[in-house]
Amino acid sequence: MAGGEKKKSGGGGKKKEVKKETGLGLSFTKDENFGEWYSEVVVNGEMIEYYDISGCYILRPWAMSIWENMQTFFDAEIKKMKVKNCYFPLFVSPGVLQKEKDHIEGFAPEVAWVTKSGESDLEVPIAIRPTSETVMYPYYSKWIRGHRDLPLKLNQWCNVVRWEFSNPTPFIRSREFLWQEGHTAFATKEEADTEVLQILELYRRIYEEFLAIPVTKGRKSELEKFAGGLYTTSVEAFIPNTGRGIQGATSHCLGQNFAKMFEINFENEKGEKSMVWQNSWAYSTRTIGVMVMVHGDNKGLVLPPKVAALQVIVIPVPYKDADTQGIFDACAATVATLSDDGIRAEADLRENYSPGWKYSNWEMKGVPLRIEIGPRDLANNQVRAVRRDNGEKTDISRVFLVEQVKGMLDKIQQNLFDVAKQKRDACIEVVKTWDEFVKALGQKKLILAPWCDEEEVEKDVKTRTRGEMGAAKSLCTPFEQPELPEGYCISRRKEYEVKAKYRILYVLYNSLLSQRKYYAGTKCFASGKPAKKWTYWGRSY
Amino acid sequence: MAGGEKKKSGGGGKKKEVKKETGLGLSFTKDENFGEWYSEVVVNGEMIEYYDISGCYILRPWAMSIWENMQTFFDAEIKKMKVKNCYFPLFVSPGVLQKEKDHIEGFAPEVAWVTKSGESDLEVPIAIRPTSETVMYPYYSKWIRGHRDLPLKLNQWCNVVRWEFSNPTPFIRSREFLWQEGHTAFATKEEADTEVLQILELYRRIYEEFLAIPVTKGRKSELEKFAGGLYTTSVEAFIPNTGRGIQGATSHCLGQNFAKMFEINFENEKGEKSMVWQNSWAYSTRTIGVMVMVHGDNKGLVLPPKVAALQVIVIPVPYKDADTQGIFDACAATVATLSDDGIRAEADLRENYSPGWKYSNWEMKGVPLRIEIGPRDLANNQVRAVRRDNGEKTDISRVFLVEQVKGMLDKIQQNLFDVAKQKRDACIEVVKTWDEFVKALGQKKLILAPWCDEEEVEKDVKTRTRGEMGAAKSLCTPFEQPELPEGYCISRRKEYEVKAKYRILYVLYNSLLSQRKYYAGTKCFASGKPAKKWTYWGRSY
Repeated sequence: MAGGEKKKSGGGGKKKEVKKETGLGLSFTKDENFGEWYSEVVVNGEMIEYYDISGCYILRPWAMSIWENMQTFFDAEIKKMKVKNCYFPLFVSPGVLQKEKDHIEGFAPEVAWVTKSGESDLEVPIAIRPTSETVMYPYYSKWIRGHRDLPLKLNQWCNVVRWEFSNPTPFIRSREFLWQEGHTAFATKEEADTEVLQILELYRRIYEEFLAIPVTKGRKSELEKFAGGLYTTSVEAFIPNTGRGIQGATSHCLGQNFAKMFEINFENEKGEKSMVWQNSWAYSTRTIGVMVMVHGDNKGLVLPPKVAALQVIVIPVPYKDADTQGIFDACAATVATLSDDGIRAEADLRENYSPGWKYSNWEMKGVPLRIEIGPRDLANNQVRAVRRDNGEKTDISRVFLVEQVKGMLDKIQQNLFDVAKQKRDACIEVVKTWDEFVKALGQKKLILAPWCDEEEVEKDVKTRTRGEMGAAKSLCTPFEQPELPEGYCISRRKEYEVKAKYRILYVLYNSLLSQRKYYAGTKCFASGKPAKKWTYWGRSY
Repeated sequence: MAGGEKKKSGGGGKKKEVKKETGLGLSFTKDENFGEWYSEVVVNGEMIEYYDISGCYILRPWAMSIWENMQTFFDAEIKKMKVKNCYFPLFVSPGVLQKEKDHIEGFAPEVAWVTKSGESDLEVPIAIRPTSETVMYPYYSKWIRGHRDLPLKLNQWCNVVRWEFSNPTPFIRSREFLWQEGHTAFATKEEADTEVLQILELYRRIYEEFLAIPVTKGRKSELEKFAGGLYTTSVEAFIPNTGRGIQGATSHCLGQNFAKMFEINFENEKGEKSMVWQNSWAYSTRTIGVMVMVHGDNKGLVLPPKVAALQVIVIPVPYKDADTQGIFDACAATVATLSDDGIRAEADLRENYSPGWKYSNWEMKGVPLRIEIGPRDLANNQVRAVRRDNGEKTDISRVFLVEQVKGMLDKIQQNLFDVAKQKRDACIEVVKTWDEFVKALGQKKLILAPWCDEEEVEKDVKTRTRGEMGAAKSLCTPFEQPELPEGYCISRRKEYEVKAKYRILYVLYNSLLSQRKYYAGTKCFASGKPAKKWTYWGRSY
């Protein structure tokens, strides 16, 4: 299993050998031992420290700054949408938690319970929020009375706790994690539907524009949707090394299920009593784990410039008899010039480490661009820039420093995305039959298959693929649907209100068109019944 | 007891009458029923909603935006000091929590324990952090090895839980609250001492520059200092209505106590093994409660412009036959002009409420400046501005709108501080004897008294003043010490490394000088022993 918990650090006194002082480099390679590689790279890259409680992790500043960079973007965007931040309590009383049956069934096994304070037992055990629907909605009922109180759009940045027992993995699956959770209420379904997609688009931008990770927007199956909701949309990423899909972030339309349970009613413009339509949506620190898995390499982390705490590290390369002071001054001046233009740059002027050691150190930490300044550079009024993503080296005149560095950072950001997309796309396999499906699953593919959209069939797929690696399941039904020569499918697409532009699936789409004969009256890959849609399948995190 | 928990809202379905829809205004006055007034004003001002778990409160957007405004300032300031943000887990294992004896004794009765997940009992109960010293320091021990790893400066913005049973009060004393906690480690005591005061100055600025609340910087007594630390400094505010001091924020020097327990050692520049010096410092959402208590009045909240979510509310005042559309357009244009210059302004264009209702509504919410636009204003190309703090009305030409509004917001900010300072200063009483002390305490004064600085004497003061209102205790020994004609006091002041400028206590200082004869060989007000310092005493939150 990928990214399993292989290391633990004691909570107490004894010091362990810290890699950075005894030698650099990773013990495992990404291709051969992905799980171990991941554990090692998040620790050696100083993103994570393992904690003495299993499934809890320390987010070190190197990870936290990435979280903050994404937060700055997302928080400003939702504020433009008139979403307001608030903070609801960590604790939930059992009566409220259990109000929505499907919802609590989905979360009950993972809920942590506080039963004592000091030496005293609490009268009633109190739950720690796994998510805040049931925490918030009793008050939505109180605050919403008339149509003028709508829409109500709240968000909170907080921690949540899900006491999971399977495979804790830093960022990806932890017992406590940080996230934002938005909770909105509208007078009409149309407004709710629209917001679901607006938020999903922000999540796409976080992944694609900030983390340089290609994602697929789509809708989850009935089996995989949010417990208690109406429908769930998500952005889905893929980890080629493990052949697993990973749910990147979710934007749920809750419909009126919670409104019914929590009596969230309002008087509409005609003076009639109505029930609100609700959404909830969230992304978490899992984003950072996906980024590490997708971009990291055998030298360590690879950070996209837009989220990196440090975009440029400047390293002096002095030689014997060279003008050491001049080199150090040039490093400081380079940092000052870049910083003045808003580029996050620092110089590593430590005298007790060699330039080579520093190169490895900052490669491990994934800094997008390294600038070296040696005697020759000083003489030529230039610097040498080395890209973390592909190792490319360029001499840059100090006269054009800022423009060139900005250009290179943009290129790195784009290249990371392009490479990740190529790798992801190369894993997509279109299958039509069960045999093809099983074969593709064995090859760790991201499988696109025509499906009858029946819950029993998905359960059956899970049962039939059960095994050591975990069962396959539906990942999402992409909004951008290739042609499925049946009228029904078209109307489903309309329901999503998404214009399929066929950009991402362009090649695929053409190949499907050319094979049209095979798809006339397309059958479900698993049940043989008429297919209603194309859906992504695979193993997942 | 002030600010007690008088109201609770059910977690469930039944709707209560919401004040804003049935009539405005508060049922209680600040002077006559302070506790009830406070509970009402935080709810009706839409800062807080009472939650169905006692001692937990919902921070609504109106409160959250104040928190965010302070956070933006403080976070930027500590980043200039090279402090980095991180996130440590919510949970602590019992072994680590109990490592520092004094520390755990201070917190043990308030610790909430998780003992179950889902239906299963945990093998070992797990604590929820009341503060994170014991969560973090085992890892400081791991990360700090040589002098180059120092200083280590981390901060986190998070929730903490202290399951207190006495007098839960919104913002002021709640079982869960939000704060930042900084945790730093240095090679030398000097560096730690310096940082303690740098941080304390930031806390003073939050109170005085942002919240417009005068505070006193000083040092806590041995009895009142942070459990397990070396010494504690604080900013202390005062609530004239209840005559209670309130600890505003604390900056602790932990000395080497935690370093010893958690083995946080490093090799110094001479190659010798040394122990680090540590600080921890925090301010919390309590700040917001102090602001409400100090500035609020019988019309509701009064928000200082620098922290208010909304600085200006623009209200149309249409009359029959007047150019209603023109008035509404002028309102919108006014908001646009102000917003373009970074002033947080909105128009209340709701048609189902009268101007008078809107005035009361926004007064309740404490918006610093109201702008009214009626037919006469439209004709004269002017607006009418009404200050929330003192009700002052001014006609402003729309030509000079931005400058004038900016000027008024600055004046409001300054006036709030000045008025609060006058009220606070009027409560300060200098006493020399036990009888004077008891009398002043009965008059709800902030008492400045010469003290022998002995722990037993403070315990004795507590015992002798015990009663329904709670015992008196030392609040702080102010850095700005009035003259105390004894050599010893001077050397204590040097230890603080603070230059007493006698600004705040100028009047007092002069009056003391003129009465010098009384203080020659000053005695402790409580024990009669030689006094070592002037210390503030009183009841407190």
